[in-house]
Amino acid sequence: MASSLMAIPMMPLAAKGATMASDEATRKVQDLLDRWLAAWNASDMDAMFALFRADAHWVNIVGMHWKGRAEVEHAHRVYFDLMFKGVHQSLEAIESIVPVAGGAVTVVARWSLGAFKTPDGHLNPPSRDRMSLVLVPEGDRFVIVHGANIAIVEEAQRFDPALKGVRS
Amino acid sequence: MASSLMAIPMMPLAAKGATMASDEATRKVQDLLDRWLAAWNASDMDAMFALFRADAHWVNIVGMHWKGRAEVEHAHRVYFDLMFKGVHQSLEAIESIVPVAGGAVTVVARWSLGAFKTPDGHLNPPSRDRMSLVLVPEGDRFVIVHGANIAIVEEAQRFDPALKGVRS
Repeated sequence: MASSLMAIPMMPLAAKGATMASDEATRKVQDLLDRWLAAWNASDMDAMFALFRADAHWVNIVGMHWKGRAEVEHAHRVYFDLMFKGVHQSLEAIESIVPVAGGAVTVVARWSLGAFKTPDGHLNPPSRDRMSLVLVPEGDRFVIVHGANIAIVEEAQRFDPALKGVRS
Repeated sequence: MASSLMAIPMMPLAAKGATMASDEATRKVQDLLDRWLAAWNASDMDAMFALFRADAHWVNIVGMHWKGRAEVEHAHRVYFDLMFKGVHQSLEAIESIVPVAGGAVTVVARWSLGAFKTPDGHLNPPSRDRMSLVLVPEGDRFVIVHGANIAIVEEAQRFDPALKGVRS
């Protein structure tokens, strides 16, 4: 299942400020994101929420905070029924994997999403987002214990103080 | 220092889907957020970045991803110089504290921010955001290892599928 992810560009994890994740952690992150992607693109909420721990929280792209997997799952099912069914998502990059404590890691993944129609009929153009995930080991996999998904405001990115040439 | 936070409303952490954080963890989260708030409102970046682990990452409100404390700090210093110096922040609520693994916790804090002027002269009105933090124990405190800050789109909140009365 993870084979399709081998082509995903990885940011150099040895860059300044980065802590190296183990090869095993990296492989398990790739596996989880591959499963996420497959579940999203199949609109398969059962498969998607098999990836979550029961006490997982989520903050969505407009700042709604869902507490516990049951609530996170319910909200996603509502939004898939309303607007995301059949809307293609792709993984642009696994930007970082940072070990936290006790085998947990934080991951930043960059996704792109196709155009979709909102319930009031507005067409949302293709967009990108950066998703922070907190993953913990469970058996031989990672499960999601927290997610926070931030819209990339494209016109703001060139003002990023961390961009080379902007940095003083 | 934490005394001012005693008035901050806490969401009931025993609600469904929530794992109880210990009293000690809760106290340490309150202490960290109190220090954050004091540092922000004093525009004291030295105090603010004493709260971070060296390998901390941050995804800001428009989706910029900063890798490592040095980069996170540089970017915050640039934005404080450009627009946030003297802009008052207040903590509306610590919405959740969820144990992750190895003593780490994820926290969702809701903040409000006063109006500020962007570099191009646009006046940004008062706004709110939900900040996800990943905290790990270091000595007798927590330090920040990840932050993701999401703007609350106020007009979207009434469509939250998790709201009572909306939930099917």
